[in-house]
Amino acid sequence: MDWRQLMTTLDAVLREGFDAYKRLVDDTEPILTALDERSGDGDFGANLKGGLESAADRAGASDGLRTWNALSEVFLDDVGGTSGPLFGLLFQEIREAAASADSLEALLRDGAGAGLAAVQRVGEAQPGDRTLVDALEPGVTALRDHEDLALAVAAAVDGAISTRDLIARRGRASYVGGRAVGFPDPGAVGIALLFVALGRASGLDIQPALDRLIRASDGSGSGIPEESPTTPEPTAESELNFVLDAATDARHPLAALSLEERAQVLETVADALETHSEELVQIAVEETHLTAGRLTGELGRTSFQLRLFAEVVRDGGFLDVRIDPADPSWPVAARPDLRRSNRPIGPVLVFAASNFPFAFSVLGGDTASALAAGNPVVVKAHPGHLHLSRRVTSIAADAIRRAGGPDGTIALIEGHDNGVAALEDPRVKAAAFTGSIAGGRALFNIAQNRPEPIPFYGELGSNNPVFVTPDADADAPEQIATDFIASFTLGAGQFCTKPGTLFVPTGSAVAKALHQQQLPGAAPLLNDNIHAGFQKRLTELRNAPNVRTFRAEGDPEANPPAPILLHAHGKDVLNDPELYLDECFGPAALIVEYDSHEQMLELARAFPGQLTATVFGLEDAPADLLDVLAERAGRLLWRQWPTGVSVTAAQQHGGPYPASTTSQTTSVGTAAIFRFLRPVAWQGFPQNLLPAELADK
Amino acid sequence: MDWRQLMTTLDAVLREGFDAYKRLVDDTEPILTALDERSGDGDFGANLKGGLESAADRAGASDGLRTWNALSEVFLDDVGGTSGPLFGLLFQEIREAAASADSLEALLRDGAGAGLAAVQRVGEAQPGDRTLVDALEPGVTALRDHEDLALAVAAAVDGAISTRDLIARRGRASYVGGRAVGFPDPGAVGIALLFVALGRASGLDIQPALDRLIRASDGSGSGIPEESPTTPEPTAESELNFVLDAATDARHPLAALSLEERAQVLETVADALETHSEELVQIAVEETHLTAGRLTGELGRTSFQLRLFAEVVRDGGFLDVRIDPADPSWPVAARPDLRRSNRPIGPVLVFAASNFPFAFSVLGGDTASALAAGNPVVVKAHPGHLHLSRRVTSIAADAIRRAGGPDGTIALIEGHDNGVAALEDPRVKAAAFTGSIAGGRALFNIAQNRPEPIPFYGELGSNNPVFVTPDADADAPEQIATDFIASFTLGAGQFCTKPGTLFVPTGSAVAKALHQQQLPGAAPLLNDNIHAGFQKRLTELRNAPNVRTFRAEGDPEANPPAPILLHAHGKDVLNDPELYLDECFGPAALIVEYDSHEQMLELARAFPGQLTATVFGLEDAPADLLDVLAERAGRLLWRQWPTGVSVTAAQQHGGPYPASTTSQTTSVGTAAIFRFLRPVAWQGFPQNLLPAELADK
Repeated sequence: MDWRQLMTTLDAVLREGFDAYKRLVDDTEPILTALDERSGDGDFGANLKGGLESAADRAGASDGLRTWNALSEVFLDDVGGTSGPLFGLLFQEIREAAASADSLEALLRDGAGAGLAAVQRVGEAQPGDRTLVDALEPGVTALRDHEDLALAVAAAVDGAISTRDLIARRGRASYVGGRAVGFPDPGAVGIALLFVALGRASGLDIQPALDRLIRASDGSGSGIPEESPTTPEPTAESELNFVLDAATDARHPLAALSLEERAQVLETVADALETHSEELVQIAVEETHLTAGRLTGELGRTSFQLRLFAEVVRDGGFLDVRIDPADPSWPVAARPDLRRSNRPIGPVLVFAASNFPFAFSVLGGDTASALAAGNPVVVKAHPGHLHLSRRVTSIAADAIRRAGGPDGTIALIEGHDNGVAALEDPRVKAAAFTGSIAGGRALFNIAQNRPEPIPFYGELGSNNPVFVTPDADADAPEQIATDFIASFTLGAGQFCTKPGTLFVPTGSAVAKALHQQQLPGAAPLLNDNIHAGFQKRLTELRNAPNVRTFRAEGDPEANPPAPILLHAHGKDVLNDPELYLDECFGPAALIVEYDSHEQMLELARAFPGQLTATVFGLEDAPADLLDVLAERAGRLLWRQWPTGVSVTAAQQHGGPYPASTTSQTTSVGTAAIFRFLRPVAWQGFPQNLLPAELADK
Repeated sequence: MDWRQLMTTLDAVLREGFDAYKRLVDDTEPILTALDERSGDGDFGANLKGGLESAADRAGASDGLRTWNALSEVFLDDVGGTSGPLFGLLFQEIREAAASADSLEALLRDGAGAGLAAVQRVGEAQPGDRTLVDALEPGVTALRDHEDLALAVAAAVDGAISTRDLIARRGRASYVGGRAVGFPDPGAVGIALLFVALGRASGLDIQPALDRLIRASDGSGSGIPEESPTTPEPTAESELNFVLDAATDARHPLAALSLEERAQVLETVADALETHSEELVQIAVEETHLTAGRLTGELGRTSFQLRLFAEVVRDGGFLDVRIDPADPSWPVAARPDLRRSNRPIGPVLVFAASNFPFAFSVLGGDTASALAAGNPVVVKAHPGHLHLSRRVTSIAADAIRRAGGPDGTIALIEGHDNGVAALEDPRVKAAAFTGSIAGGRALFNIAQNRPEPIPFYGELGSNNPVFVTPDADADAPEQIATDFIASFTLGAGQFCTKPGTLFVPTGSAVAKALHQQQLPGAAPLLNDNIHAGFQKRLTELRNAPNVRTFRAEGDPEANPPAPILLHAHGKDVLNDPELYLDECFGPAALIVEYDSHEQMLELARAFPGQLTATVFGLEDAPADLLDVLAERAGRLLWRQWPTGVSVTAAQQHGGPYPASTTSQTTSVGTAAIFRFLRPVAWQGFPQNLLPAELADK
């Protein structure tokens, strides 16, 4: 194509792009107006529509360049509102770039790039401020990095949608604070529509991106409901495909970062999390029933964990470097030069949990350890805190980009079906999950039944039994009783390490002390699902033979439920262990009196795999009990309480099934990184072809 | 019970035991006679039956003691054959012990113990010599160690059955050498029947043990067939149950051994393997088509591997000890004293492979690493070398016992259904397998679909591609051609690391060199199953579009098959990669010409997970090819050949599916031990209650 042909083509696309934009804005004007009513004075839709009509009138049937001349003049001079002149600046720069461009992508890259600079100069808005910059900037970046209009359309649309979870700091919307959260910024949507129109004019299939934008903008499924979790917006098939392709593409560049660079990515993400702490905690408070204090602490744990993994990465020990020099005298046969280290396993799918919206969600331990191992991560959002998840993902993606990590290193997908589709997808090479036994087992089965089965690290259910020996029972009954109540009601009993059953000897002093102590008041559970699950299991437990209510301050069946202590005898429990000993997630616990050491051992043997098992004894310790428990639990505690899982090198959070689906790994602590590595041995390679860690020093 | 009552009871049991023994021998006399016809002069059954009849006549209706007086007199004085007087000595000692015994178990322990000593003094037989000692000794040992008659009955029966796989060195049977292998020794069966009879008289349910003994003795399913694998004898349900209970019971005592003791168990087993080398290789030669030289080398590899794991155990690094002292200033929350190490996972089920009757069978890498990790092992025998498997198990069990390891540390089960039943059994906590994709995947699915899923380490299929770059192709074509032929025909192509496809550039000099070289002659495959599988896959490959025979010295479809080289073009392979690139187990390989670097990369990307991938290049190495291969293979080789898998610390034998079901582990090399460990953390424990490795030094 010579220069003249090219110009003719570009000109035609500009004209068709204008026409397409005008039609799109005509169609979506009510949506744009509604959005602006939430965050501004409601005139954005009418202004944009009116401006385009004036420009169309002024341009008549003229060519592309003349049409865009008219367009920029109308918006710079006549269109009102904050955004009219900003749009005008953008149109003007695109018009000017058309003179020297050698492709449509170059035209838009230079024109929209200059427009972005002009808009930012005038409006002083940064990405993340919830303005049109949030759509324009990603679109321009995609064009600069990839010269690909399709990617730019997707990026602008994603950027516009991402404003849904931003609290405005710039522009009109800043005055309404958090009220607009849940709805995208209308200016950003207007920009995204422009990219869509230009994409359509140049022959791209923009329908999936447009559908996504409209769905996110028209208010269906948006806004933060008062009582129930946000309905997740199913990620469209094409979007899931885009996310998984991006993760796959990120695999090599991410693995190619030095350990120091990888550590810095983690630290930059940790910094960003803390920079946005106030905003994020505010969103989390709105979405969950948790307090700002608790959430602030949890955010601190989350950023600490990212930094701890940065240290693990720098240390390099996780690579498990093994070097066997060639040895012709090695027994049986000569030994070749053989060097082995751990490599990233590939894109990891993380299913977020509800009960820790920071520490076991988008940037929780699973994501931190998968990133530390050098893998791209796709997070399936938990519907209990969707807006928080979106915002955290956006902050993390931005931080990763700034630290030099490749795009596609982190992404969020929403909706159960998308989670399953991603788990079945051959591009995903490992998955992690924290949640219920039923849900986790179903996903585990999917992962194992793929044509290529993949590791599925599910952390499921646990009762976390506590055994009090007769001498310990007599020794400090008040203390044990007080601390037990504090532990089983912590976080309204919504911890995976909540002690669910307390075993005490017949006639126990601890039991007597428990009877005299005050239980804390009712506290709301995280969401309706968890409340319903708690009620169902509690009813089952209360109806078990010879179970009686031992202590309850209020109504455990109300919402929020009052904590409750139940009581049973060892012999009844042994008749049907599952009925008594399955997990009850919420503020309830069972006291079981055993009538002999042998019965206590039998009760311990009745447990399937557990996350924790606790013993209160004195010096004369029951070694046989410890033997039984060490076969069943990942963590044993001596005279301490299982709630509170410190993030350390020696932590073990995971036990035989059903505590977890892979008892040989942990989901908390630095050893969690080993879940996402795979060893590769290099035989006979020259130094220059070996991975850095395997070359001679 | 006072002394008088006790004596009355013992006396009654002796009488009833005699009667029961007489009935049993009446019933089984034809079986005993048939057994003796194989290994002696065929009179054992008649002699035993006649002796018991004489004793019954002489004793009349008298009490127990008098009956056993008569019994010992008749056998010492009147019964002929080698074994008559030996049985007489035993009866006499039991009769004498009755005077001072305070329980039936003590009576038999002392009586049979003294009898054993007398028999050994006279006959000079040791355990393993294929005499009645092989049943008597385990029975006496069980009584000494456990004072449990039921265990003694089982041990005597097991001992008698184990003689089936012994080559006689003592007694009459020694003259017939290996002819009797496959049938138990009649004298040992006669002793086992005595234990059964005494068990029945004391009220035990001996029927399962008796059924087992009869089935193993009556010739059905015994003997070594000439051409097809031995039909495995399904282990009866009660026997499987016994084996799994014994493994479970061995769990604690085995884990309680010190690392030094555990290392000595492995070394004692290695010693025993070498002590019996000649005998074992002889059995293996009879059962497989492999040469004594190859089998002797493989046995050496197997004992070396056991010793290497003993060193790993002594070193203790595999425990991955992590100690976090309490730290009140630890970020987010105070850190408790937390100490973590790896513990044995529990009883391991090992499915033996056919192609390495020593190194990947009863005492192969899976068993060695599982034992090193401190776990009892149950081996599912491969039907291709059943007698060898039985004999190796018996030698290993004996060595473990001598080294102080608990009974139940190793056991053999036979038959597909028993393998599946064991895999489904909750007492089994991990499984390892080496074999075909179809078989391995079926077992993997069973392991994952258990109520409690367990780790299943399957090493399945691999094509092991070799890529030759254009410059390497030009550099040393003759050498590459010669070595490729040697590698793909090694062991008649029956190695899991056989290079199945050689990628060379269009117009390759290596291909020309291959065309001029001689292929080795036909060699028999391991068994009919493997031969049939090879023919099926070879036909499929030869019928693939545009595949032509490149070189064949004889008839690859004959039995034994001649090696064959096929040829295809890259573009055809890319049309249907599975058809061309699936594994072909046997002496065949495919040469593929690629027409560009990009096509070579595409061909590399077409592979699923592989055990190995090999590159022949010069200095200017194709880094992009290595990147692609490192994502797909467990071991990369540079200018070396993949056959021959050295047992070292840095070895990695396992890759993404279908090379293995768990790409994060290896089945060869010392890192294989990590498959059978599970971490446990101990929080806040006093020093005296911690496992040795976690206590302060």
